[in-house]
Amino acid sequence: MSTLAPSPAGAGQLWSPEEFTARLRAVPAERYHDRHPFNVRMHQGTLTPAELRRWIVNRFHYQRFIPVKDALILAKFDDPALRRSWLRRIQDHDGTTEGEGGIERWLRLGEAAGIDRARLLSGDGVLPGVRLAVDGYVNFCRLRPALEAVAASLTELAAPTLMRTRIAAFERHYPWIGAEGLAYFRARVGQGDRDSTEALALVLTGAAGRRDQEAAVAALRFKCEVLWSLLDALETATAHPAPDTPR
Amino acid sequence: MSTLAPSPAGAGQLWSPEEFTARLRAVPAERYHDRHPFNVRMHQGTLTPAELRRWIVNRFHYQRFIPVKDALILAKFDDPALRRSWLRRIQDHDGTTEGEGGIERWLRLGEAAGIDRARLLSGDGVLPGVRLAVDGYVNFCRLRPALEAVAASLTELAAPTLMRTRIAAFERHYPWIGAEGLAYFRARVGQGDRDSTEALALVLTGAAGRRDQEAAVAALRFKCEVLWSLLDALETATAHPAPDTPR
Repeated sequence: MSTLAPSPAGAGQLWSPEEFTARLRAVPAERYHDRHPFNVRMHQGTLTPAELRRWIVNRFHYQRFIPVKDALILAKFDDPALRRSWLRRIQDHDGTTEGEGGIERWLRLGEAAGIDRARLLSGDGVLPGVRLAVDGYVNFCRLRPALEAVAASLTELAAPTLMRTRIAAFERHYPWIGAEGLAYFRARVGQGDRDSTEALALVLTGAAGRRDQEAAVAALRFKCEVLWSLLDALETATAHPAPDTPR
Repeated sequence: MSTLAPSPAGAGQLWSPEEFTARLRAVPAERYHDRHPFNVRMHQGTLTPAELRRWIVNRFHYQRFIPVKDALILAKFDDPALRRSWLRRIQDHDGTTEGEGGIERWLRLGEAAGIDRARLLSGDGVLPGVRLAVDGYVNFCRLRPALEAVAASLTELAAPTLMRTRIAAFERHYPWIGAEGLAYFRARVGQGDRDSTEALALVLTGAAGRRDQEAAVAALRFKCEVLWSLLDALETATAHPAPDTPR
């Protein structure tokens, strides 16, 4: 619960831009989902085809809500120039015409892995923990101030490196997924660099005091927990598949 | 307050598409703000320059929130094609590059009427009733189902006719506002036709039962009340200017 009295932590001195940046960067460095056991196994090449397909189905549930959370963030901005800039993220995922965009590329990843696009779109096989993680992130972007919602997007600081590692891992360990299936990961390398540069600048200039700075760091930590929790659900489903869990 | 028991009205038979369309069209035909005394005087040419400037300042407060409400509506859609289509409305108002779009055109209307754009952007002179009307509309789009938020946009059914009348009235009665100041109104004729056609199709197909149909009609009535209330605030300010009301 919030309080009207300043917290001891909130009474601290403003961090310098350098210290604030370092504290933000430290969050994904320590807590990004590249360290999650499920992701480690994915990149080591030891996932079975069924486990990899289950990840594709569940991660798609996250992907399809990215334009929704970005529209909720856009609605918090009062500056047309800032909205124009953020709107590009919606277009990155929805495309500007039919057959384009990140959601379409993810559907093609599914097809390359043998998952029908109708199956992916149906949401069948999405695990309860994944639904809760995605709902939690979307509602965070719906309900929290613009600064925190933008700061939560800063997992993009770590995403391009993860994408490069993932492309190499898929090419090496899962050649049964054709190269055309990896187009989503390839596109995100450049998009992630651009988006994280933009968002970091917004957070650095938008945090007016130490409390804002701490809220931004906490928001980024929360986002790392969302991504971690999504993989927790997959890890548990692997160890203890429920009767209706896709195998 | 909502109730889990079906209301007597909600138990009625589904209206045919023709009847539903007629009931929707009847709302702005009866309640659109073209009939408001302030708008009638504006189009009759009897507003003083100060009254017209006050309207421009206050209506701008509505204009600047249009992309916000459209982003909130976009966030309700789960179909990328539908989001792509609705995203165009955000671009209509924000533009796709600096110096374009409906908000910029409204700033130019202000300049043509002798109002500095910094003054317009400051929000100085926005009346309390106008703030409440705009907040009410944005929150309606934030909190209500997609069907109702889209139905509320159907005042666009009546907007192109109003725009044509307004352009003629301004050219005739307020020639001190240069023709370049009317670019916003000119652009809205085509945009309003296109947007209302799209939204009407969405509402017709999206209303699954009589309760949905009635909710859509009620949403459009609400939106007419928002626009009416905005002009009420201007009408009162004209009759009883407050000490800090711009004259």
